[in-house]
Amino acid sequence: DQKQQSASSSDPYSTDPPRHPALRVNSQKPFNGEPPSEILSENYITPTAFFFKRNHLPVPKVDPATYRLEIEGLPNGPVSLSLEDLKSRFPKHTVTATLQCAGNRRSEMNKVKQVKGLNWGIAAISNATWSGVLLRDVLLDAGYKSGGTAKHVQFEGLDKDVTGTTYGASIPLGKAVSEEGDVLLAYEMNGEDLPADHGFPLRVVVPGTVGARNVKWLGKIILSEEESSSHWQQNDYKGFSPSTDWDTVDFKSAPAIQELPVQSAITQPAEGAVVDRSMEEVTVKGYAWSGGGREVVRVDVSLDGGRTWQVAKLRGGEEDEPPPPPGRAWAWKLWELTAPLPEDAQELEIVCKAVDSSYNVQPDSMAPIWNLRGVLSNAWHR
Amino acid sequence: DQKQQSASSSDPYSTDPPRHPALRVNSQKPFNGEPPSEILSENYITPTAFFFKRNHLPVPKVDPATYRLEIEGLPNGPVSLSLEDLKSRFPKHTVTATLQCAGNRRSEMNKVKQVKGLNWGIAAISNATWSGVLLRDVLLDAGYKSGGTAKHVQFEGLDKDVTGTTYGASIPLGKAVSEEGDVLLAYEMNGEDLPADHGFPLRVVVPGTVGARNVKWLGKIILSEEESSSHWQQNDYKGFSPSTDWDTVDFKSAPAIQELPVQSAITQPAEGAVVDRSMEEVTVKGYAWSGGGREVVRVDVSLDGGRTWQVAKLRGGEEDEPPPPPGRAWAWKLWELTAPLPEDAQELEIVCKAVDSSYNVQPDSMAPIWNLRGVLSNAWHR
Ligand SMILES: [Mo]
Ligand SMILES: [Mo]
Repeated sequence: DQKQQSASSSDPYSTDPPRHPALRVNSQKPFNGEPPSEILSENYITPTAFFFKRNHLPVPKVDPATYRLEIEGLPNGPVSLSLEDLKSRFPKHTVTATLQCAGNRRSEMNKVKQVKGLNWGIAAISNATWSGVLLRDVLLDAGYKSGGTAKHVQFEGLDKDVTGTTYGASIPLGKAVSEEGDVLLAYEMNGEDLPADHGFPLRVVVPGTVGARNVKWLGKIILSEEESSSHWQQNDYKGFSPSTDWDTVDFKSAPAIQELPVQSAITQPAEGAVVDRSMEEVTVKGYAWSGGGREVVRVDVSLDGGRTWQVAKLRGGEEDEPPPPPGRAWAWKLWELTAPLPEDAQELEIVCKAVDSSYNVQPDSMAPIWNLRGVLSNAWHR
Repeated sequence: DQKQQSASSSDPYSTDPPRHPALRVNSQKPFNGEPPSEILSENYITPTAFFFKRNHLPVPKVDPATYRLEIEGLPNGPVSLSLEDLKSRFPKHTVTATLQCAGNRRSEMNKVKQVKGLNWGIAAISNATWSGVLLRDVLLDAGYKSGGTAKHVQFEGLDKDVTGTTYGASIPLGKAVSEEGDVLLAYEMNGEDLPADHGFPLRVVVPGTVGARNVKWLGKIILSEEESSSHWQQNDYKGFSPSTDWDTVDFKSAPAIQELPVQSAITQPAEGAVVDRSMEEVTVKGYAWSGGGREVVRVDVSLDGGRTWQVAKLRGGEEDEPPPPPGRAWAWKLWELTAPLPEDAQELEIVCKAVDSSYNVQPDSMAPIWNLRGVLSNAWHR
């Protein structure tokens, strides 16, 4: 936009790419924005321009011709690969995976009691097809062998703050090297080169795992005994008890968020929308997803604030696709319920809750899961 | 007991073994009993005599000398193994794993609205060390190769009803053959031969998976494209919406329970116990566990019905044991909180809720997870 284009060149954000004007902006620098929530349930694959954007730092400009991916911590020494190496030397894999920000639905938790963080609505979640090479294939080719001392795979982005500190995160080694983990070094999103905001030319896609570990503008991979030492791995993106405040919090006491819990939300009708009383039926739509490859198996919808429930119709990917193997359901389900309007209702209190394949459910209310960073906000949506 | 010993020999239960008189009996024939709940939190490893017992049929008498395990559905044809074959030809593995009945805490769900099933309290869960051979090792030795058409591993027990129908269940193939699945064909429990009630001479232990799939008195293993056709796999042990009743239930519409959701309960003070007002502190104890190898990372305890929370101290296995790798935390945590008595409280309303490593939490209340079979009863315990 104008304001951004005319910023002085000393502004590290001055070269950030343009964004779709319909995104709701939660922060301009770094850019954080989410689509109108109805768009989510209208498209099983979120159109790229509307996929939520969660940047921690300025978008780096990377020249694909000179780009190198460095890999360290291997028994035979470091490895350096060009983009062409990755594309030509390894089979191309495509995975449909939903990414969700740890702070999705933070605004609802913020209403219980103030939290620190971007005030996301219900749309810091989106679904895309990602293509690239399997991290497993690259690590095995680079000399990785099981039985070593490494326990984590660290990722460093090429995005930097003014002191030169890069974004970083890590995932457990087992997820990275498992044949069933489906962790990608992705160079395409929805069939095209990754856009600048989503990590061009290469990002990690860790299906089933919180957005924050899906490092964009990937510069370096390090196999290590330790988790990433980054702020975002060590002192952020962790869950705490509602009794923990900024005076008492001990970030070492909680595990870094990896797999996310079961989640769902209502995208239509929009909050506060007026439902025409002359209509005999109401149609409710939304999304549901769970972390760790757990498939959503049921969504219950209530029109009376949770007193009674009806089971929604679920929609996955293409009708003719086989269902994902157990533990590898990386993509969300869209859901829909058309039901008669309760006769004497002055106001509909619509509520949804999802169940995943481990029969985990969403908690009833936000206050008991409130935490100072406002992450993991997955109570029933109403 | 006397009544059982004097039963006529036409009673198929007449040869059932004796049981510890302290068990609370939910059904005599078949025998189903749970220990006093305080015993659970007094012992990290539940003493064998107090481990909950969940039988579906009479206990079969099996002669270990003539016992055979049959394996079918393999590319090179069926295999038959003696107990001695299993013990001598495969490495011995020991796994500490908590088993929980799908119906644990059903009695609380039953109070919301009547359900069908044994009226379990909070102690249809116990923890033991299991030793035996890895199912993976046995299948690989028997000729199993990946890439075939099998998707499930079916187990048949030697326990039979009057028509000759045996108990049966199945698990996904991936769990059975994974290096990280830790599925055992167990011949020992807590360092001794399996007792008759727990499956002598051989049972399956499927860590992280509902008790019902941990088939006892194992007679046959079948690799198949299909799940077990047993009543217990197809028309039982599934979760449904609170709106589903016996007139509308379609058992095909829900997945068979495998991994269980996060769970916790208070074992001390016992329900209705009087806490001495002259004491300045109260000590609360309990257990917490989650399915799928997800570790319990926090337990919150409230003394005021859920308004405010305190974090309990967790206890795992031996202090000097390394923590389990991610996704392989098969055993529970015991927890304890000592806190000042609230000054003006006439009655303490003690509540607990657990969080697992995927940050899944227990739901606040039972009514919204009520289901006609009373399974998966994991709301906050109070
Ligand atoms: Mo995030
Ligand atoms: Mo069970």
